[in-house]
Amino acid sequence: MVLKLGGSVITEKDRPETLDGPALDRAADALAGADRSRDLVVVHGGGSFGHHRADEHGVGVESGTGDAAAAFAVHGAMTTLNRFVLDRLHDRGVPALPVHPLSAAARGAGGELTLPLAQVATMLTESFVPVLHGDVVATAGEGVTVLSGDEIVVRVATDLGADRVGLCSTAPGVLDGDGEVVSRVSSLDDAALGGSDATDVTGGMAGKVRTLLSLDAPAQVFGIDGLGAFLAGESPGTLVD
Amino acid sequence: MVLKLGGSVITEKDRPETLDGPALDRAADALAGADRSRDLVVVHGGGSFGHHRADEHGVGVESGTGDAAAAFAVHGAMTTLNRFVLDRLHDRGVPALPVHPLSAAARGAGGELTLPLAQVATMLTESFVPVLHGDVVATAGEGVTVLSGDEIVVRVATDLGADRVGLCSTAPGVLDGDGEVVSRVSSLDDAALGGSDATDVTGGMAGKVRTLLSLDAPAQVFGIDGLGAFLAGESPGTLVD
Repeated sequence: MVLKLGGSVITEKDRPETLDGPALDRAADALAGADRSRDLVVVHGGGSFGHHRADEHGVGVESGTGDAAAAFAVHGAMTTLNRFVLDRLHDRGVPALPVHPLSAAARGAGGELTLPLAQVATMLTESFVPVLHGDVVATAGEGVTVLSGDEIVVRVATDLGADRVGLCSTAPGVLDGDGEVVSRVSSLDDAALGGSDATDVTGGMAGKVRTLLSLDAPAQVFGIDGLGAFLAGESPGTLVD
Repeated sequence: MVLKLGGSVITEKDRPETLDGPALDRAADALAGADRSRDLVVVHGGGSFGHHRADEHGVGVESGTGDAAAAFAVHGAMTTLNRFVLDRLHDRGVPALPVHPLSAAARGAGGELTLPLAQVATMLTESFVPVLHGDVVATAGEGVTVLSGDEIVVRVATDLGADRVGLCSTAPGVLDGDGEVVSRVSSLDDAALGGSDATDVTGGMAGKVRTLLSLDAPAQVFGIDGLGAFLAGESPGTLVD
């Protein structure tokens, strides 16, 4: 099972490098209550940690920087957030271990991602909970570029054969034109239902839905209220498959 | 070129988690003055950071721990030391990036190490200086075990085809029975010259010499006084080949 914790769920999106402590506590509580007999990989986004620093230094998914100090500023913001997540999980007895993508991954000149996962697979067999995150990654011809949490989710779910993928977002699911949660999305046409009065969320969500549709595993999109249910095997929010 | 900075060179060995700041400054100065046209990978040991925490939690190369908090305590001590090293290098304009082995490596049940190096190779092509370190690593059947900086040096030098390996240690080279630096060691018999009045250094050094002899690349063992010369292509201390 692969769980993505949206960066804007666990941070305050509008304030640089500000944790949403109560939300992270709730997420950590839910993870502490999950059935430990199932393998779980957690991936979190950057929220106001990663995005702020990346914007500041002009680093994106396609355009990079060769400035090591800039790369390290973005990476350091992400590892700080990762440390907050790990601390909350350890406080609750969740055997979480960090996996920093900068230390493991590389991108070729054509954009192709190398992300070997023997470390994650071994952590799982040893009953740990690997916690990955959006990061910067060394990229041929670009210095470092941004590697998004969503891209990591897809790679981990695909390469490790996840049964189920969960996306915990700020919205309670994929919304229709009336702002109601759609129970199931099976094509991009369904996902285009979202109204234009919520373009940010909808725009971001449409991209996420496209990505989730490309997975073999069924995916569930839900808000933090649905996290416990998802971890218990239920189907909160929207099923994307 | 692969350079190992001994943990006991850059930390105060007898005091838990205490940096030897002046020694690290000297090492960073030497690295800042090095010819940047040659690829350089730096690996540092744990010194009083890693070893202290590892002993405290009973984690070794062969016997591990399944306790994530213990694993994270050892890893955290090492990443703290790594952060000190990176900060000193960035202060001097060395484009260093961290590579944490826990995030990249795994050990199988037979002890075999998986350590993919596309991230290091890509950092090198992008003119960064990857900085690795001794760490804990997920290990089948053991939770996590210790992965030594020396084992990392061998793997990186072998897999990336290093021309030259440098080992910056507390001793000015491999010593003979009179405490004098031997200029060249070509077999373990030569290395056994060290007197019994220095068993610690000799014991540790004998193991290192055995490892260095197994490399294809020539290796140089020297003290911090020799670091600048090594980086300039000279042959301080002892040549092991």
